Formats: sequence, structure tokens, C-alpha cells
Amino acid sequence: MRLSRYFLPTLKETPSEAQIVSHRLMLRAGMVRQASAGIYSWLPLGFRVLKKIENIVHEEMQAAGAQPVLMPTLQTADLWRKSGRYDAYGPEMLRIRDRHDRDLLYGPTNEEQITTIMRDDIRSYRDLPRNLYHIQWKFRDEIRPRFGVMRGREFLMKDAYSFDLDFEAARKSYNIMFVSYLRTYARMGLKAIPMQADSGPIGGDLSHEFIILADTGESAVYADKRLLEMDPRADDIDFDADLEPIVKQWTSLYAATDEKHDPATCPLSADEMIEARGIEVGHIFYFGTKYSEPLGCTVSMPDGEKRLLHGGSYGIGVSRLVGGIIEASHDDAGIIWPDVVAPFDVALINLKSGDEACDAVANDLYAKLGDAGVEVLHDDRDERAGVKFADMDLIGLPWQLTVGPRGVKAGTVELKRRAGGEKHELSIDSALSRILDFET
Amino acid sequence: MRLSRYFLPTLKETPSEAQIVSHRLMLRAGMVRQASAGIYSWLPLGFRVLKKIENIVHEEMQAAGAQPVLMPTLQTADLWRKSGRYDAYGPEMLRIRDRHDRDLLYGPTNEEQITTIMRDDIRSYRDLPRNLYHIQWKFRDEIRPRFGVMRGREFLMKDAYSFDLDFEAARKSYNIMFVSYLRTYARMGLKAIPMQADSGPIGGDLSHEFIILADTGESAVYADKRLLEMDPRADDIDFDADLEPIVKQWTSLYAATDEKHDPATCPLSADEMIEARGIEVGHIFYFGTKYSEPLGCTVSMPDGEKRLLHGGSYGIGVSRLVGGIIEASHDDAGIIWPDVVAPFDVALINLKSGDEACDAVANDLYAKLGDAGVEVLHDDRDERAGVKFADMDLIGLPWQLTVGPRGVKAGTVELKRRAGGEKHELSIDSALSRILDFET
Repeated sequence: MRLSRYFLPTLKETPSEAQIVSHRLMLRAGMVRQASAGIYSWLPLGFRVLKKIENIVHEEMQAAGAQPVLMPTLQTADLWRKSGRYDAYGPEMLRIRDRHDRDLLYGPTNEEQITTIMRDDIRSYRDLPRNLYHIQWKFRDEIRPRFGVMRGREFLMKDAYSFDLDFEAARKSYNIMFVSYLRTYARMGLKAIPMQADSGPIGGDLSHEFIILADTGESAVYADKRLLEMDPRADDIDFDADLEPIVKQWTSLYAATDEKHDPATCPLSADEMIEARGIEVGHIFYFGTKYSEPLGCTVSMPDGEKRLLHGGSYGIGVSRLVGGIIEASHDDAGIIWPDVVAPFDVALINLKSGDEACDAVANDLYAKLGDAGVEVLHDDRDERAGVKFADMDLIGLPWQLTVGPRGVKAGTVELKRRAGGEKHELSIDSALSRILDFET
Repeated sequence: MRLSRYFLPTLKETPSEAQIVSHRLMLRAGMVRQASAGIYSWLPLGFRVLKKIENIVHEEMQAAGAQPVLMPTLQTADLWRKSGRYDAYGPEMLRIRDRHDRDLLYGPTNEEQITTIMRDDIRSYRDLPRNLYHIQWKFRDEIRPRFGVMRGREFLMKDAYSFDLDFEAARKSYNIMFVSYLRTYARMGLKAIPMQADSGPIGGDLSHEFIILADTGESAVYADKRLLEMDPRADDIDFDADLEPIVKQWTSLYAATDEKHDPATCPLSADEMIEARGIEVGHIFYFGTKYSEPLGCTVSMPDGEKRLLHGGSYGIGVSRLVGGIIEASHDDAGIIWPDVVAPFDVALINLKSGDEACDAVANDLYAKLGDAGVEVLHDDRDERAGVKFADMDLIGLPWQLTVGPRGVKAGTVELKRRAGGEKHELSIDSALSRILDFET
């Protein structure tokens, strides 16, 4: 993409309304604009990141055997009246009345809706287990929306729902999601730690939040240091196998947010513990027959018995992750994207657009990288070098490849890794092959 | 995908609530389920088709120079008060009040919102032309939603918006979309005919609807036969070149729906004309300064003059197209998907699941096709042959590859094209290479 044609409205000044770094950087990098309180429009650069995260979530969910569906944003209130949540849910639920005076609501979550689909269309115990998910916009009418996309009102979420015949089978479905989540976050370059969460009236221990570490995180985190060294992507995972040992390995080590942490009972010495800040980016939860019972979601067993299905729900905040990744990965100059979620792989900076020799080298690099499938944002604008470097540091693409008149004469270009910042003066071919070796 | 694990709830009976063939077939093929009046959940098979159409629209829009953004579903009423449309829009607009008693609405379209983005973030005449689009859920509170996804209340739409400095530049942007639309529909296997549409108070001739032909279409269509022979994908298109000659070529031939057709003034003889039925699947429209004026969307010209931007909007009904394609391509047995939008490429039917020899051949074909990137739905269920054939004809995948005990003994399988229905008994290798030659 040529920047001269790209809609990338970066800002020099820090917008005063933004209280946290990801919000500031997303506004400054021209990724989002506020449409109204807690509601954002995603501009081209932000949309690319959102799509990359969405694609990773799709791939990892399907690798774990979940199947994509797409439920609507608006739901009928009747459905929530049946589950008892229409009245129980507070003012965060956006209630709507249509032209025929029927009550609708903008779904904050989809347990009722998916349970109805299962009830109507699952015929036999042989159709189970089943895990269906979607990535869809949700709405929660936060009283004070803030922190940009981290706590917006309209937000994009992946929610998956598993259905099983009994608790033991449901635990297997839960374990699959547990391991899948660890791998999903790791793939995005994030260190996520699962932490026991409240399971409410259901009880039991099948409820975990996934917290990523970021200095600017919303909660304090206390965790066993060994959790940081564990790599959930180290082994090939067979999701049909028994995953309980892997889950045990992660859950047997201490980890708690400040809400749950109690120094008096924490088994770790100061040496063994990390104290850090964290951001919740996912929550998995076994809810048993909480929805199948009021909604009548049963299957026939071989002996004719009608069996209520056991459910679990599994959320990942997709739009929230865009902010979360920035919170976890930035410096004073701007965002530092992990490679897999970067909106482009390479910032190609032509320091002297309009100069024949510079244009020739830059255009040639642009074509060669593009042909190899590398995503390049080519700064071909007629702007000062300082502006170009500042913009590219701000938007944080993994590689910066700079073409300038002095280098072109000597047959060299400059290659910089945004993370770390080391720069190398290289021959054009070496720079090209260094990027291609890494990216392809 | 193994059908034994896939959530594909096909129906034998025709649901009584469905009045048109696409609605009936989408319900029977397990593609969608109604969530409430005019609001649908997309099940796995339907979701795959929706995504394929979405991807084609993304690719063709970007090939034509439009850039993807994503605006929210909910908009503030204030924005529509400024344009005057809050009161002008009838009861089809879903009006919402949030917890702070602020008026919101579920966007039926996005002219106001995108114009505001442009106003706030376009700095100079040099940033133009600009075409931004998104694919997002919209809501229109139809008084009598019907015909399934063809006239639903919550629907997925691609809407693009162009911004230019004057009418002549806006006409160029319009022409780009005109040609891009022809190519987009053709790529989906559809014959779309552009027809002059009302341009309302703006006047002028820059307003066209795109109508695809289907026997079950909602309107009668009268058009010059030569339009059917023109192939918008015959030539490589340079979207930077002057497209006026191509647009002229299409618009100079007679085409009208019954609303506009007048036999008295129609220049065509009966021989030269086709009379058919059609479905509207897109609309492009130049609206001038209708929104930039009330919303104050200007740029500074070199001489300091503040210039109001000239806009156009360009819609494609993405979820509607799923139904439209089925209306245009089906038979008594079910859907006949055009290759590029088919949810899977191949239905692999194992007539005797559990039989060692049949399983071996079917599993081997499944693996080989999958390795080559062909998308296969493998019917490995323990079901009668009649059920399997009926289900596969119903869901309409382009190829049916059948493995049965008699053929396996002779080293053959049966290959059928769903469109046309011709069947061939082939050696396993020839069947495989015939599919691979076509699909890869």
C-alpha cells in the first residue's frame, strides 16, 4: 500500500480524552475514532489489526474443533425472560422496542440464543459433543465507558459454547478450550496466565480468566515465576487426547489477581513470585444445565431418557485485545506490534520521494516484497524525514526499511527492527533477503 | 470436514413459513435459523457461504482502490439530526435510548458517520479522491419482514462512500464502482444488469441498481439481449484509466424493471428483448454535497478556498446475495452453488461407512484432496445411500464423489457435477485428477 493513497490520519498531539496508553496510541496512529461514548469506528490501519486477530482466533478455534456460526446482534427479550436473565441483568443491557412494540435487546452475550439453536436442531446424543462459536459485535451499556476499545460499549467478542451429555464430558470440552486459549494468546506474542475465577452459583473450579501482563494493566497480578517460562506452543497438541495433565500443569501453580490474592495464604516466597500488572482478555466458564433447563434443551439417550445438556461458555475480547496488545507492547515513540498481528510487515520509507534514483530503488523493493507476499506500507509521501520516521515508529510495523539518497549512491539501505531498534546499513539485496528469510 | 462431526441440521420437510425457494432451501439445508422476525442465525454451512461472498466483495473493492474501515452498528441520533434524516426517516429506523437517555439508532446506512470521519480527518485536497467502505450489520425495521435473508431486518451490507472535489471527479469515482460491481457479480457466477434508478432530489443520471436474473425474482425485467452476452471480466481493467467508455457501453443498451418500463417508448423489438424476472443486489448513487453541507465536510484548496466534498454511496447486500444466488441457481433437488461461493468444493460420499475397503478409499481421497487445498465435506455418517444423496443434492456442492463397495472392488468411484448432473464412473486416480485440475 502506498501511503500517499492510504487513509492514515496520524496525530502529533496526544488527545486529551485518552487516559491510557493504548487509547492514546490508537487515536494517534489513526487506528480508531470515537463515534459516540464508548463506540468506535475502525479506520483502515485499525481494521487490519482487528482482522488479523480475528483470523488467528478463527484458526485456533477451528483447530480445537469448534465450528463457526454467526448469531445476530439483536435478540428477542422473550428468550431472556425464559432464562430469567431479562430482569436479572442490570442497566448494562441495552433494551430496545421495535415498531410493533416488541422488546428486543442488543446481545451482551449469547447463551440463550445458542441453547435454543441446539434445542431445536440437535437430535441425538450421537451429535455430541458440540462446540459452536461466533465473532460478533456485542453491546454493554457501561455507565462510564472509558479506556478506548478496552472498555467500550460496542465491542467485538468471540464467544464459544460447548454442549455435552454430562459433567465429565463437559470438563473435556472445557480443557480443550483452556489449552486452545493458551495457544491463541501465545501465537499473538502474548504471555497469558490462566487464573481461577468465580464460578458463581454453579460452583466448582471450572472457571478461569486469562490475564496478559502489561505494566499499565488494570489489576495487580501475583504469580509463580515458572508460569512465565512455560510455552503452550512447545508441543503439538492432539485435541482428541486427554488434556487434563496439561491443564493441571498450569493450574497447579499459584496465580491470582489482587481480588483473590492473600499474602497470608500464598505459598510462594518472594523469590518464587512475580508481582506484575495484568489485563483480562478472556474468560472460560462451565455453567452446567443453567440454560438447558429453563430452555428445555435435551437429547434422547439410547434408553429413551431425555438428558439435559451441560454447557460451557468461552469468551475472548477481540477488539479489547487490540488495546491489550498495545498496552503490553509499546515504547515512548509508539506501538511495537508483534509480527503476527502487525497491520503491515514492513514500513518502506523513501526519504526523497521524487528523486529518480531513490524512487527506483524504493519501487523495486516494494514490488519484490509484494510479489513475495510481504505486506508493505510504502511511505512515498513528500514529507520531511523526521515526520516519516515519527509516523512509522508510532504505527509500529516490525521492520523499517529506509531508502535515502546517500545510501542509494553506495548501493545500501537501512534496515531497522522496531522492537529493540537496532539498525543495519545493508546492501539492497541483503536487506531484502533478511526480510524475506524472516517473513516467508 | 467430516459430516459425522459437522453441525448440519438438514430438514426433510419444507418449512411452512417459507414463501420463496431460497428461504425454503436455506432452512432445509441447515444454513440459517430464524432467531426472531426478520432476524437470522447463520449456522456453519450458511456462515461459510456468507464469508466467501464477503471475501469476494473485499477483494474486488480493494482491487478498485477502496479501503476497508469498520463503523459501529449503533450511531448517535445527533448525527442524523444534523443531516435532517432523523425525522425524515420513517419507522424503519430502529430508535434506541441508552441508560443515560441519549438517543441512539441502529444504522440503516452510514452516510452521516463516514462524512463526519472525513470532515475530522481529511486535511487537504491532495488527500482526495478517497473511497472508504465497510461490511457491517445494518437494521431496517421492516413492517413485514419476509423472504428469509432476502428481506430481513438485520442484514449484512457492504457500503462504500466516495469523496471528491467536484462533480467530474465524483463521476470518475462512480464509474470505478460501476465497473467494479459488474465484475464482482460476474465473479460470483451471476449475470447482473445495471439499470437506471431514481436519483431523487439530487437529479442527474448517476444512480443505478444492479439486478440479477432469476425466475423467482421480485420484479419483471425488460432488457436488450446483448446485455446478456457482455462479459465484464473479459478484459483486464485499469481502474486508473478513463472508464467512461465501458460505462457507456453498458448504459447505452435498454434495460428497465417494470416500474420504469414503458412498452410505448421502449426502442426494442420483441426479438431484441429479453423479458425476465430480477432481484436487486446492489445500488450505486451520487449524492453530491447532500451530507457534506449540513455536516461541514470541506477541504482547503490551494488558493485557500474551503470546498465542500462531493459524495457517492455504493451498496451491496451481502447477506441478501446468499438468497439471491440460490434464487438464480437451484433445481427441484436443492441448491446448485456456483464454484466460487460454494461452502465446500466437494461432497465425498462414503456409501458404506464402517466397511474397511470403502473407508480406506474414502479416507485416502479425503486426505489427498485436503492436502491439495480442496475443501471437502466427507459424508462418513452411518446413513442410507438415499439420505446421503438427497442431503448432498440439497446443499448443492459443485462435485459429488461417491465411494461404494461395488466400485471399490473394481477400483472405481463415481464423480458427478451437481450442475447438469452428469455422472462418470472413473478410476480413483482419474476422478482425483479431474477435480484437482478444475479446483487448483
